[in-house]
Amino acid sequence: MENNQIKNESITRQEDDFAQWYTDVCKKAELMDYSSVKGFIIYRPYGYAIWELIQEYLNKRFKETGHQNVYMPTVIPTSLLQKEKDHVEGFAPECLVATEGGGNKIEDPLIIRPTSEALFSEHYSKITKSYRDLPKLYNQWCSVLRWEKTTRPFLRGAEFLWQEGHTIHETEEEARTETLKMLEIYDDLGRDLLAIPFVKGRKTDKEKFAGALETYTIEALMPDGKALQSGTSHYFGQGFAQAFGIQYLGRDGKLAYPHQTSWGVSTRLIGAVIMAHGDDNGLSLPPKIAPIQTVIIPIAAQKPGVIPACREIEKRLKDIGVRVSLDESDKSAGWKFSEYEMKGVPLRIELGPRDMENGVVTVAKRHNGEKVSLKNEELEKAIPELLEEIQKEMYQKALGYLLKHVSEVHNLDEFDGAMKLGGFAKMMWCGEEACENKIKERFVATARCMPFNQIPFGDTCPVCGKKAKKVVLFAKAY
Amino acid sequence: MENNQIKNESITRQEDDFAQWYTDVCKKAELMDYSSVKGFIIYRPYGYAIWELIQEYLNKRFKETGHQNVYMPTVIPTSLLQKEKDHVEGFAPECLVATEGGGNKIEDPLIIRPTSEALFSEHYSKITKSYRDLPKLYNQWCSVLRWEKTTRPFLRGAEFLWQEGHTIHETEEEARTETLKMLEIYDDLGRDLLAIPFVKGRKTDKEKFAGALETYTIEALMPDGKALQSGTSHYFGQGFAQAFGIQYLGRDGKLAYPHQTSWGVSTRLIGAVIMAHGDDNGLSLPPKIAPIQTVIIPIAAQKPGVIPACREIEKRLKDIGVRVSLDESDKSAGWKFSEYEMKGVPLRIELGPRDMENGVVTVAKRHNGEKVSLKNEELEKAIPELLEEIQKEMYQKALGYLLKHVSEVHNLDEFDGAMKLGGFAKMMWCGEEACENKIKERFVATARCMPFNQIPFGDTCPVCGKKAKKVVLFAKAY
Repeated sequence: MENNQIKNESITRQEDDFAQWYTDVCKKAELMDYSSVKGFIIYRPYGYAIWELIQEYLNKRFKETGHQNVYMPTVIPTSLLQKEKDHVEGFAPECLVATEGGGNKIEDPLIIRPTSEALFSEHYSKITKSYRDLPKLYNQWCSVLRWEKTTRPFLRGAEFLWQEGHTIHETEEEARTETLKMLEIYDDLGRDLLAIPFVKGRKTDKEKFAGALETYTIEALMPDGKALQSGTSHYFGQGFAQAFGIQYLGRDGKLAYPHQTSWGVSTRLIGAVIMAHGDDNGLSLPPKIAPIQTVIIPIAAQKPGVIPACREIEKRLKDIGVRVSLDESDKSAGWKFSEYEMKGVPLRIELGPRDMENGVVTVAKRHNGEKVSLKNEELEKAIPELLEEIQKEMYQKALGYLLKHVSEVHNLDEFDGAMKLGGFAKMMWCGEEACENKIKERFVATARCMPFNQIPFGDTCPVCGKKAKKVVLFAKAY
Repeated sequence: MENNQIKNESITRQEDDFAQWYTDVCKKAELMDYSSVKGFIIYRPYGYAIWELIQEYLNKRFKETGHQNVYMPTVIPTSLLQKEKDHVEGFAPECLVATEGGGNKIEDPLIIRPTSEALFSEHYSKITKSYRDLPKLYNQWCSVLRWEKTTRPFLRGAEFLWQEGHTIHETEEEARTETLKMLEIYDDLGRDLLAIPFVKGRKTDKEKFAGALETYTIEALMPDGKALQSGTSHYFGQGFAQAFGIQYLGRDGKLAYPHQTSWGVSTRLIGAVIMAHGDDNGLSLPPKIAPIQTVIIPIAAQKPGVIPACREIEKRLKDIGVRVSLDESDKSAGWKFSEYEMKGVPLRIELGPRDMENGVVTVAKRHNGEKVSLKNEELEKAIPELLEEIQKEMYQKALGYLLKHVSEVHNLDEFDGAMKLGGFAKMMWCGEEACENKIKERFVATARCMPFNQIPFGDTCPVCGKKAKKVVLFAKAY
């Protein structure tokens, strides 16, 4: 019996309206709720628990690589944000501004942080004296505010949770190494935890971060054929250091400006997971990122011995570190099946009187609907193995989809075809912003990145016919 | 040799100016820095790491007791905050208000959260339908903003980090139990982690939280004789539920309002730790809350074998879970001694060529300046034992100080004496706010709490001479 075939009726089907399906899942899986202020969402326990697992993974990786957590103010004086010209131009249009404190007007209005380069730079200027003080490898977990016109849960919000790393280094080489090292950690996060393969590469100048010399990105491909920028890492050169006066006494006894980076991922990753793996029954979570990895559902729970047997399995699995939950509520087994499918719990263990007689349990896999019968006594071995296997299968499936949706295009007709198929159009590009603009005008697609793997497959830019310089991946994007 | 006798010259002495000593330690131990906006501080890595250890302890305790983390918006519409009358009156004077978003005026100005009762209550009103939905046991880690006139690092700030628990329950009894259960967890935190004994009790009506029926508190006593409110837990009754329309269908089929609580501790606890244990050499951290529990300092580091021997000890201690750090920098041993004393690292291991010959290390205890010689081969056993011992000694010392500074007073002369001694004046009180006001006027002392341990020791209130109803602890307070 393929339980997966009983589609959950309470949400829109993906093929009917993917955007509505997404919103339905966000709400029905109880990941979030709307607040009374447009664009500000409530991260409900189940959604927040996913974020906590991401935090745990990244905190460990960040600390292993020598980073330290700090906390900067929520507010940035307008005059401070204005110190770096490109930066303020990029962020000013979407700032929330506080003008009144304790009933009095604030002379230098306070911007609620949209990002914290200005705050870190100012602090670094005060605590950096000598090359001995370098590098500074700081990270901050916080929320940031951006007054966006169009918002969607997790994907684009007036407020979202993120981490922002900010580092300064003695040499350009060290800073560049840092920029790419952190991108690799994000890539690992995708593969190891989220079961999402990212395309890595560098942003074009048009798409880079306000104030950065270079921006690197991880891009995920969603099932509707659109790309999702999932994290970025920036090399700033000495621009912020000069604007904010960060200087240190070098080994040669001369004053110098350090080289700076910043990098971040956000709760947008939750949106990526929802879309990358979900289906018409709701959310489907890779085990590593699942707050509940295995749910136990008693069958004919009123029969003697069923609940104690379920509790025993719960305890055994908890003891070996599986995130397990037993649902003892008086709701029907059918209701529970569909509830935990909606919540994307990777494994469901069913246990009833007949299973008990036979010394087995029935195990259903959320990601493909398969059911297997396992010997009760072997669960400590079998469940962790199944979870590992599911994690791999979900990654492989997402990788297969990505690989099928990167189309090499040699002309604009092929570009059109690639857009119709969905996914990335891989194109040779001359390097001119004018050509990016033409692509955007005609196809509503943007340059997602110049992938690290630069293998030219043509000589001319299909837009202008001039000499091509770079391989670029274009796509429609979130 | 009592290394403790070499006083650190770079900070003010406690007896000269306790407040200046405190600020000096905050800065010199690199716990915080000032930002360019008054009252907003930067939580530097060393200070933030202390907060992370508090978070880790509390998160574990909260989750064990069934609580779930969530994240609510940073902003509260003015109209929403106004729904509970007492609450808004309490907080309105210290609100930071955003009036402009994306260049446009905001019709219903947004208050940057000073606390989140309004947000939780609104959310609860949307997700609570039936008694089956209760209890809701939510907690949030975030920062809150209060536009304070007088600010001091960690103790009173325009922004501070905290956790705020918000719960709703079916019955009054359950909510009251929750309120006291969370106060107990805070008390455990004090004893187990911070080595600070708290006095527990209930606030008088004059001192309770805006909107609460009852407020419970943990109060610590600082070496300058002033009390520091270190955490609170509130029972709200059904007030917020009625104001925000939180209703559920009860077991009897009738609509009812749930009973509500909230409770919180903040980075103020870092201030408590600094003052409770610090001395003229700087910070002195109890091992459980120390980001670095043991620092290893090589003596004559250039001599062959010293650094490798230090690294070996570092590895051995790390392997058994000690938070250990080896300082290999080319600074002098003397400089390092005073640096790690300033930072309050509980144990310092010194290792030089002579120690190596003898198979020993020299270990210095920060909290009392004692030095002992330990066999190198026994460090895995000896260091954790020493850390345990120091934790207990620091708690006992703080407890001894507290017990000596609770004075039973039977008249206002004795009250005056108690204030001169410093600490708590324990007084029988009639229950009238007028008498609290008179005490405040004359002694600048406030009712810190009515301790749980209510053993009457008199019949009349020394202020008005009327019948006494409660034992109250008064003190000057932060």
